[in-house]
Amino acid sequence: MLTGCHIAFIGGDARQIEVIKKCSELDATISLIGFNQLESQFPGATKVDPAPEIFEDVDALILPIVGAHADGIVESVFSDQTIILKEDWIKTLPEHCVIYTGMATPYLEQLTSKYNIKLVRLLDRDDVAIYNSIPTVEGALMMAIQNTDITLHGSKCVVLGLGRVGMSLARALHALGAKVLVGARKPEHLARIYEMGLTPFHIQDIKQYIHHCDILFNTIPAKVVPAEVIVRLPSHTLIIDLASKPGGVDFRFAEKRGIKALLAPSLPGIVAPKTAGRILANVITQLMIEERQSRGEE
Amino acid sequence: MLTGCHIAFIGGDARQIEVIKKCSELDATISLIGFNQLESQFPGATKVDPAPEIFEDVDALILPIVGAHADGIVESVFSDQTIILKEDWIKTLPEHCVIYTGMATPYLEQLTSKYNIKLVRLLDRDDVAIYNSIPTVEGALMMAIQNTDITLHGSKCVVLGLGRVGMSLARALHALGAKVLVGARKPEHLARIYEMGLTPFHIQDIKQYIHHCDILFNTIPAKVVPAEVIVRLPSHTLIIDLASKPGGVDFRFAEKRGIKALLAPSLPGIVAPKTAGRILANVITQLMIEERQSRGEE
Amino acid sequence: MLTGCHIAFIGGDARQIEVIKKCSELDATISLIGFNQLESQFPGATKVDPAPEIFEDVDALILPIVGAHADGIVESVFSDQTIILKEDWIKTLPEHCVIYTGMATPYLEQLTSKYNIKLVRLLDRDDVAIYNSIPTVEGALMMAIQNTDITLHGSKCVVLGLGRVGMSLARALHALGAKVLVGARKPEHLARIYEMGLTPFHIQDIKQYIHHCDILFNTIPAKVVPAEVIVRLPSHTLIIDLASKPGGVDFRFAEKRGIKALLAPSLPGIVAPKTAGRILANVITQLMIEERQSRGEE
Amino acid sequence: MLTGCHIAFIGGDARQIEVIKKCSELDATISLIGFNQLESQFPGATKVDPAPEIFEDVDALILPIVGAHADGIVESVFSDQTIILKEDWIKTLPEHCVIYTGMATPYLEQLTSKYNIKLVRLLDRDDVAIYNSIPTVEGALMMAIQNTDITLHGSKCVVLGLGRVGMSLARALHALGAKVLVGARKPEHLARIYEMGLTPFHIQDIKQYIHHCDILFNTIPAKVVPAEVIVRLPSHTLIIDLASKPGGVDFRFAEKRGIKALLAPSLPGIVAPKTAGRILANVITQLMIEERQSRGEE
Ligand SMILES: NC(=O)c1ccc[n+]([C@@H]2O[C@H](COP(=O)([O-])OP(=O)(O)OC[C@H]3O[C@@H](n4cnc5c(N)ncnc54)[C@H](OP(=O)(O)O)[C@@H]3O)[C@@H](O)[C@H]2O)c1
Ligand SMILES: NC(=O)c1ccc[n+]([C@@H]2O[C@H](COP(=O)([O-])OP(=O)(O)OC[C@H]3O[C@@H](n4cnc5c(N)ncnc54)[C@H](OP(=O)(O)O)[C@@H]3O)[C@@H](O)[C@H]2O)c1
Ligand SMILES: NC(=O)c1ccc[n+]([C@@H]2O[C@H](COP(=O)([O-])OP(=O)(O)OC[C@H]3O[C@@H](n4cnc5c(N)ncnc54)[C@H](OP(=O)(O)O)[C@@H]3O)[C@@H](O)[C@H]2O)c1
Ligand SMILES: NC(=O)c1ccc[n+]([C@@H]2O[C@H](COP(=O)([O-])OP(=O)(O)OC[C@H]3O[C@@H](n4cnc5c(N)ncnc54)[C@H](OP(=O)(O)O)[C@@H]3O)[C@@H](O)[C@H]2O)c1
Repeated sequence: MLTGCHIAFIGGDARQIEVIKKCSELDATISLIGFNQLESQFPGATKVDPAPEIFEDVDALILPIVGAHADGIVESVFSDQTIILKEDWIKTLPEHCVIYTGMATPYLEQLTSKYNIKLVRLLDRDDVAIYNSIPTVEGALMMAIQNTDITLHGSKCVVLGLGRVGMSLARALHALGAKVLVGARKPEHLARIYEMGLTPFHIQDIKQYIHHCDILFNTIPAKVVPAEVIVRLPSHTLIIDLASKPGGVDFRFAEKRGIKALLAPSLPGIVAPKTAGRILANVITQLMIEERQSRGEE
Repeated sequence: MLTGCHIAFIGGDARQIEVIKKCSELDATISLIGFNQLESQFPGATKVDPAPEIFEDVDALILPIVGAHADGIVESVFSDQTIILKEDWIKTLPEHCVIYTGMATPYLEQLTSKYNIKLVRLLDRDDVAIYNSIPTVEGALMMAIQNTDITLHGSKCVVLGLGRVGMSLARALHALGAKVLVGARKPEHLARIYEMGLTPFHIQDIKQYIHHCDILFNTIPAKVVPAEVIVRLPSHTLIIDLASKPGGVDFRFAEKRGIKALLAPSLPGIVAPKTAGRILANVITQLMIEERQSRGEE
Repeated sequence: MLTGCHIAFIGGDARQIEVIKKCSELDATISLIGFNQLESQFPGATKVDPAPEIFEDVDALILPIVGAHADGIVESVFSDQTIILKEDWIKTLPEHCVIYTGMATPYLEQLTSKYNIKLVRLLDRDDVAIYNSIPTVEGALMMAIQNTDITLHGSKCVVLGLGRVGMSLARALHALGAKVLVGARKPEHLARIYEMGLTPFHIQDIKQYIHHCDILFNTIPAKVVPAEVIVRLPSHTLIIDLASKPGGVDFRFAEKRGIKALLAPSLPGIVAPKTAGRILANVITQLMIEERQSRGEE
Repeated sequence: MLTGCHIAFIGGDARQIEVIKKCSELDATISLIGFNQLESQFPGATKVDPAPEIFEDVDALILPIVGAHADGIVESVFSDQTIILKEDWIKTLPEHCVIYTGMATPYLEQLTSKYNIKLVRLLDRDDVAIYNSIPTVEGALMMAIQNTDITLHGSKCVVLGLGRVGMSLARALHALGAKVLVGARKPEHLARIYEMGLTPFHIQDIKQYIHHCDILFNTIPAKVVPAEVIVRLPSHTLIIDLASKPGGVDFRFAEKRGIKALLAPSLPGIVAPKTAGRILANVITQLMIEERQSRGEE
């Protein structure tokens, strides 16, 4: 439980609702900043005006996935006003307060290090990345089904990378009956790909493995699909690039060759905002409970 | 091979291209009627004007999935003219000619029985229904991902029916990490559901199994989801009805209760026309080869 | 519940204990014949001497899997005496009594038809065969692991038949990472094999598909693995024949060629007697409840 | 290819044959020491007497899985003589020679570090551990099927550890229809367990998750199954401990409580020596080829 714990939320999107809901269920005291258009009500949660005093006894401050922009602006789909995370607020926070954000902008990093406030970058966590791989994969499947005239079943799919997303994606494609090849560079990744019943290849040999490829999924945030790879793909291949911007594909060349290539960022929030919100809610509340325990409060 | 075999195609959609391609690869002689806007060329295939003489030595006549309408009209996406399957044409066919259609309209049934011409209804075949279940399932997955704010993984999915589509669908959902319950009525179906690692229930007990249901997929062409079932569904449930029109769901009542219910007909041709076409191509050519062998021609 | 229901058991093995236990849990009145060495006690169950009067009000009579031998002998691992199913007993049974047996010997068939007593052959039921396929498959996996020096993962396994056992077996092998080919003769079986992600072939073409075969599993009760097939197998192939005696393999020729071939009957009772017993318990009690309901007693 | 490469083998078991075979296929020059009873012949391989000169131009020296014992003794199932790895031999090796062993004894470590010879401990490699997890899992499945009277399908299996063996094992059990719970301590492991469709729990909460456990598999080389855990297991639970000796189970207490607990070491070499040999062969030859390339010889 989070009884007696004061949590402040600043801005966010549909996902944040799940976090607020969970904190409320765990009996926390919740201050909402930048939610003036939110209609749902949650026990223990109050919309507040961000006077600095509010922050004096805040145990945890929760920001949106994208954190705070360069100038302190925090996005909120639940507000018609511009919300700015002020230095004053941070200054007022008690020493033990923890700030939770998806990712950290330099603005946020500077501010928190200046006032020595602990900053948790949720998307950097391995567990969050694995949980998020689930909606990411379903988004990728949806795109693949929509953008081809063949079935995944029986198709030849090449996945680049056996990281957190790559493993989940490769497993799902195999389960749906695709012939799955996975390119990686670590020997233990090649071994795991084989154990999973898939065909491994070393990413440096990619050119030899993409003949007859129907769908190429990239999860590697590096230029692993340059022109000399694309030129060897059949013209009907669909490329779905999941790696964070700018992706790993030479999109300009793909277009020139008439190969459909899609950059597909931020799938969890788009495809399954509720699940994505619950993932954050579970991890954040778990961390807050551990934090309290380590402070000897529970 | 189909060398020396004369095959006439009348109308069709993208799927028919795959059938023509396969027949061409097998060296058949092909007459295309209702394809005047088709651009691709296939060895052995000629666009012809449908003079009755054409049909004199036709070994197989291939119609579109929907067959011929009441008045003999045959749909073709490759023609800007209206194509009418004339009685004269059927009359002229040699005795051994076989007509292949997806389904049979009364018009077609009458005509073929009058002239004693063998009519193959492809969609009635068990094997075709099983092959088609693959694109059907992928279409259903796509719709489920698109129309919910949660992931299939971890969701509670109820599938009604363990027929040809139901089995494929239940397997795919399970493989993607959903909790899958399947309702059926035959004891052997309940046994198979259990063996597949899923939760079986008797369709007559449906009301006890749909609490907390996130997605309800129906494959039973009977009124198995009436108002008294819908009233027990959580309000966020998505219903996807795959059964042929009018489906098995009380759509009027679902709408009244604010439950999203989608009727999703003809998914194979929509989601994966190329795969759907290849399925037809493989089955038709296989049947034609067997037909020839039984006539002692090969 | 089976309250007020009188059930008599005659003989059996470990599996029968599960049936007795379940009947006891459902509050039946139970008479045990041929269990004088049984130590466990079950509420409502009594060991009785088989005086004909016992049978006057028996609602269900439960025999072992193998039924009664030619001369009426019923096997029992829980008795040191010979138990003989007497005609007198059958004669005394009330009209509505049902006899449950695994399989029926001519002796049993004659007797029950003479006195017009309903006889249920459990192993003939589709659902029982499917449930039993589960321990059968695990027995087959165990034998395959034991009798080869390679892993199933990565091996080439050929399964003959996509019946109740074949489907379960093929699925399990695939799940463990084997390359699975399945031979069948019905087009819908070939389609289902393909949908399952396996390689289908027509059983008549078997000779073309067994090159490099590591393990050949037969589930077809017909001579589908004759000498001319065996001669084409690599010498290291292991053959596991699951089909009921005499199996489908030319064992004499296999031995001559030095190919290891195992006939593996009755796996469920050997590999998982408790599970096999529960399968029977569930089906028998379900049938008894339905029987009662159809007599309007519950 | 390994043309021109001189490889010496000292001792070993059935697995070594696969390594010799593969080196021979790759055209290496092979010296066999301690193989005087080996009957098979391989092109390029000669049985030699271990005069020190032999070692002068050896590029790679391959020892058995267990390496060399304290006193230099090397086990060989192919020799009736005692083979001792002499310091003289190591001293004679060229600077670039690499020694491959499964594991390293202090004797071996000392010797190689003294003469500055590169020693590769194959079993320490992540990729080898993952490949070996495959036969290990099949051995564990076999033991579980043999030592229970229920099926894995439908049983409740608890796996401890999501390391290289744990992941493969959990996947296989799930695929066979078991209800699988996996205990781990890293948040990313718990996340991956969830993504795999299994039930995760923190290893420190083990006592809450083992009720109704049918089979407990341990892969953690630490005392994670002490008396206070065992005391909470149902009496029919089977424990299979895969962790390296002395395992993670309090075997003494298990025996006292009448719970069957099996320590199951070295499964790959027992269950699938050929596959285990091929794993070594592939990794060793791959490493030798890379070694050569890095020396600029190919
Ligand atoms: N589109 C979306 O909605 C979405 C959702 C989640 C994640 N993402 C993005 O998807 C990408 C993958 O995410 P993840 O969580 O799977 O990350 P990850 O676990 O770090 O996986 C990335 C993989 O790329 C490999 N890699 C990196 N650089 C490489 C190179 N130069 N050559 C070969 N392999 C290389 C890594 O292999 P090694 O282990 O060998 O380094 C690693 O396995 C990231 O860019 C992430 O931001 C997108
Ligand atoms: N949306 C699409 O794109 C698409 C694609 C393919 C098929 N379909 C349609 O989907 C439906 C299912 O196709 P299918 O190939 O799976 O057919 P199927 O193999 O005949 O399966 C239908 C199942 O419904 C059960 N059923 C029928 N009447 C029932 C009743 N009154 N109560 C309970 N169960 C009943 C049958 O069970 P029993 O065995 O017990 O009779 C059977 O298992 C059909 O309407 C078909 O036209 C749609
Ligand atoms: N060893 C054990 O412990 C154990 C356990 C259970 C069962 N069994 C035995 O295993 C066998 C299979 O059992 P099951 O329940 O799977 O039976 P099943 O469902 O009847 O399957 C048998 C399959 O064999 C095929 N078949 C029959 N005759 C054929 C022929 N001449 N050519 C080609 N295919 C043919 C059938 O195909 P069609 O549909 O085309 O006819 C059917 O799919 C039986 O003999 C059974 O007694 C053994
Ligand atoms: N029986 C056989 O035939 C056979 C075959 C192969 C391997 N093995 C043995 O099986 C064991 C596992 O092998 P592996 O390759 O899977 O090793 P591994 O990848 O290192 O896995 C071991 C797991 O144990 C966990 N662990 C270690 N200490 C722990 C502790 N104190 N509390 C909780 N978790 C702990 C580790 O988790 P963290 O990541 O959190 O540290 C790791 O995930 C080894 O002992 C190995 O020698 C036996």
